[in-house]
Amino acid sequence: MRTEVAIVGAGPAGLLLSHLLGLAGIESVVVETRSQAHVAARIRAGILEHGSVEVLTDAGLGARLRAEGHRHRGIYLQWPHERHHLDFVALTGRGVWVYGQTELQKDLVAARTAPVFYEVAGTRLHELTSDRPYLTWTAPDGTAQRLDAEVVAGCDGSFGPSRAAVPAGERRTFERTYPYSWLGILAGVAPSTDELIYAWHPNGFALHSMRTPAVSRLYLQVPAGTDPSDWPDERVWSELALRLGDGERGWRLTPGPITDKSVLPMRSLVQAPMRYGRLFLAGDAAHIVPPTGAKGLNLAVADAALLARALTAALRERRWDLADAYSRTALRRAWRSTHFSWWMTTMLHATGDPFDAELQLSQLRWVTSSRAGATGLAENYAGLPLAP
Amino acid sequence: MRTEVAIVGAGPAGLLLSHLLGLAGIESVVVETRSQAHVAARIRAGILEHGSVEVLTDAGLGARLRAEGHRHRGIYLQWPHERHHLDFVALTGRGVWVYGQTELQKDLVAARTAPVFYEVAGTRLHELTSDRPYLTWTAPDGTAQRLDAEVVAGCDGSFGPSRAAVPAGERRTFERTYPYSWLGILAGVAPSTDELIYAWHPNGFALHSMRTPAVSRLYLQVPAGTDPSDWPDERVWSELALRLGDGERGWRLTPGPITDKSVLPMRSLVQAPMRYGRLFLAGDAAHIVPPTGAKGLNLAVADAALLARALTAALRERRWDLADAYSRTALRRAWRSTHFSWWMTTMLHATGDPFDAELQLSQLRWVTSSRAGATGLAENYAGLPLAP
Repeated sequence: MRTEVAIVGAGPAGLLLSHLLGLAGIESVVVETRSQAHVAARIRAGILEHGSVEVLTDAGLGARLRAEGHRHRGIYLQWPHERHHLDFVALTGRGVWVYGQTELQKDLVAARTAPVFYEVAGTRLHELTSDRPYLTWTAPDGTAQRLDAEVVAGCDGSFGPSRAAVPAGERRTFERTYPYSWLGILAGVAPSTDELIYAWHPNGFALHSMRTPAVSRLYLQVPAGTDPSDWPDERVWSELALRLGDGERGWRLTPGPITDKSVLPMRSLVQAPMRYGRLFLAGDAAHIVPPTGAKGLNLAVADAALLARALTAALRERRWDLADAYSRTALRRAWRSTHFSWWMTTMLHATGDPFDAELQLSQLRWVTSSRAGATGLAENYAGLPLAP
Repeated sequence: MRTEVAIVGAGPAGLLLSHLLGLAGIESVVVETRSQAHVAARIRAGILEHGSVEVLTDAGLGARLRAEGHRHRGIYLQWPHERHHLDFVALTGRGVWVYGQTELQKDLVAARTAPVFYEVAGTRLHELTSDRPYLTWTAPDGTAQRLDAEVVAGCDGSFGPSRAAVPAGERRTFERTYPYSWLGILAGVAPSTDELIYAWHPNGFALHSMRTPAVSRLYLQVPAGTDPSDWPDERVWSELALRLGDGERGWRLTPGPITDKSVLPMRSLVQAPMRYGRLFLAGDAAHIVPPTGAKGLNLAVADAALLARALTAALRERRWDLADAYSRTALRRAWRSTHFSWWMTTMLHATGDPFDAELQLSQLRWVTSSRAGATGLAENYAGLPLAP
């Protein structure tokens, strides 16, 4: 097989890149290790930045998002006895949208025009420093496959083969682990809040998010390595009620049937550069952020948009300047989000150190009382321009 | 002896409190372990917030400060190949003043009306939970002394007896140490910059400050425990030139004779509450900040101003409401400055971890390119209102 852009990974980064390239008349083929059902069912992020919605809308992918998604003006930040609303729209002119990654994934699958090969095995990337790179893999029927391309896009997450295809001497990895995880639940109950609540609590962070008017998504900070079976439903709800409701008179958390319960590890990772010869990395293949601040999916959308522009110039106009600038531009943005995610994470998670707790509370008071402090959080959360 | 307010410590917090009480017609007596010459010669901070200058001016202590001090509009923040000016006046309407603590100390000594007993030994605080507290000490001539008062003000720094006079069960101490120190020099040479330069560098932080048009004050991040004798003058100047000049074309650091060289440890400490019965803590007796961001002297001025108001109401009007609120109000401010000092410190000091370095650079880029980011730094540096 031959195509212009070989894309490894059929998650949001890979499918959006393929879609944007298609709009520019550039051919691509996508290969994916998992099954289509598996990819479609992965419960991940649910918050889209203003700029991400613009990218998706410009690409013709905004109709269902705007009809079924929910625009939020901001978030609540709270600690015991104080709940503050930060109005991002008033502070920065930009809001965010609640729209599950699972929904965006459905839209991308429905809109796709390029071939996607699911359940491939042993994907390998070859001749990346030549102008004729290619992929090989084994199809589900056991046959060996080869895809020749001009460019390879690695959109296969941090455990895929693309990241590792960059020789060790040609890449640097920056990494931070955190001593806590999130216990996340999906519940078939109307959210008890109109916008997300980020709650600092001495027992640990809690977050009340949502997917739809009938589906709530909630999280509890738990120690890294926690077994979800240590958290029967009743314990989850009572701890959520405590952390989210402490000192909030007149507010109650409504429990409901839990349909999914899992533990999400937290880490920060950046691999630089995001290019090696004709291989370009996008999304989780290049960077992982902890979920606090909801940047992961938005970084994937931004990478795909930047990379689509760069590859369109390279393959249609034979101008490689944007491709040459891609890694630097995308990393600048990735580090901004990495810093913001780290900052939100370290401001909100209990460490057990009383000095940390007082620093966190002082920072929360400042962020919610200073216009500059609130605007700083808002502009990072609602999203900075695509190419800073 | 009998007085209304017994003040332990004749540094800026103690002398300013005594002066402000004197203006309100309240008697005080100050006792100090060190000699007057020793206290006068201590080289410490040199930056006064807008609000500190207002307090001093209102107290009739502003004449020489305004004549000989230098008002700065802001600071420079830099990293290799980029130097940015943050204009605090444009961002917040408030600037800062360069005026050495040694100069302020001279003004306070010149203005003092209350008796100050220097070189006392074995100061002890007694009966603090009664309404007749008293101090005892041994005078330089060996005689035992006693001072009865209505209130005791502990302004004797973190190693003085006041902090420790609060029973262990009645206080909490919050503390953070840092793995680095500052090597500070005073040099008899005109500063090579009009305003302070805070420099991030892979080798470590550097700061170009100044005292007068003929005296420069410069600092280098060094490992904790560094012996100043490992840093001969030539090594100090060449490392300063590297960290402050890296990538700054057309800028040169002018070296000169070094008149003082010392290593300053870095730590954060808060003791809470700042009151125990009739004992009120102010300045370093209650909180220590690392020097990054120049908050120590300003916190001492703010505590003295708040405490003078509170004690004036208590002793003249027999209203104890401000005294009852003192610890809470002063701690709110102290934690804001503790957080800001920690934030400036951790943004600017090399840790040896490449992930930290990239986070720091991303944060510096954001602070110097986002109006909200710049304003957040500016409003904390130039100083928040006395009672938030």
